[in-house]
Amino acid sequence: MKSKLLLALVSLTLAGTAAAQVKPEDAIKWRQSGYGFMAWNMTRIKANVEGTYNKEEVVKAANAIQAIANSGMGALYLPGTDKGTGWEKTRVKPEFFTNRDGVNKAALAFIKEANEMAKVAAAGDAAATKEQFGKLSATCKGCHDDFKIKD
Amino acid sequence: MKSKLLLALVSLTLAGTAAAQVKPEDAIKWRQSGYGFMAWNMTRIKANVEGTYNKEEVVKAANAIQAIANSGMGALYLPGTDKGTGWEKTRVKPEFFTNRDGVNKAALAFIKEANEMAKVAAAGDAAATKEQFGKLSATCKGCHDDFKIKD
Repeated sequence: MKSKLLLALVSLTLAGTAAAQVKPEDAIKWRQSGYGFMAWNMTRIKANVEGTYNKEEVVKAANAIQAIANSGMGALYLPGTDKGTGWEKTRVKPEFFTNRDGVNKAALAFIKEANEMAKVAAAGDAAATKEQFGKLSATCKGCHDDFKIKD
Repeated sequence: MKSKLLLALVSLTLAGTAAAQVKPEDAIKWRQSGYGFMAWNMTRIKANVEGTYNKEEVVKAANAIQAIANSGMGALYLPGTDKGTGWEKTRVKPEFFTNRDGVNKAALAFIKEANEMAKVAAAGDAAATKEQFGKLSATCKGCHDDFKIKD
């Protein structure tokens, strides 16, 4: 028991050290990159469900969104990154750092719909893709409403 | 045969239209986002093979890199995006737009090693991950040497 506790403390310290090595401006830049790349892929899926449907393109886009959603981006919201500039000034709201339950709920909803999006894209049905795209978009918007400062 | 050709031409025109709707500054921003997000994940894998190895974290990072590598980012190098500013001024070299064979070769090498990286990460062996990380990094560097303006 004692050694387990010690191990946990050491792990925590190492994790803390690793996190401390990430510069706040890099963390902000990297998370903005994740959202920026997802924006392209959302745009692509939208163009496909509103225009000519290309299954292969939708699959690629949905897989990219799924992998980014599941990448553990929460680690990029380090203490000290509530303000600061990556590619641009962060637009995260202070609530992101205080309302952990709300953030977790939003993140889990997003991951769930992103996983479903990849599954639906692989099946290749345009109408089902359109419907799932709507559900996924709603989880993006929900999080932006609560935790992102408006343009 | 004639109708196939017609269909091909129509598809080409539609693709051209869709591509034309993407603003050059968005295309540059989105590709910079892809590279930026991969940078974080490369950093994470490096930290794991050089420090404490966390299989789950390496898998997440490798999956993100794989999905971005296979997303078809080449589509973001539209005509007119050889110069311009996304998140920052593009550092693509003019050769990227003239040496198509070289670009294709670099892209295929990168995709191959990114796919292998995800496979090796899933197996969970730290030494094998370190070796594959070296091979993947080499394909990044190779492309940067030929097609990216130095810092």
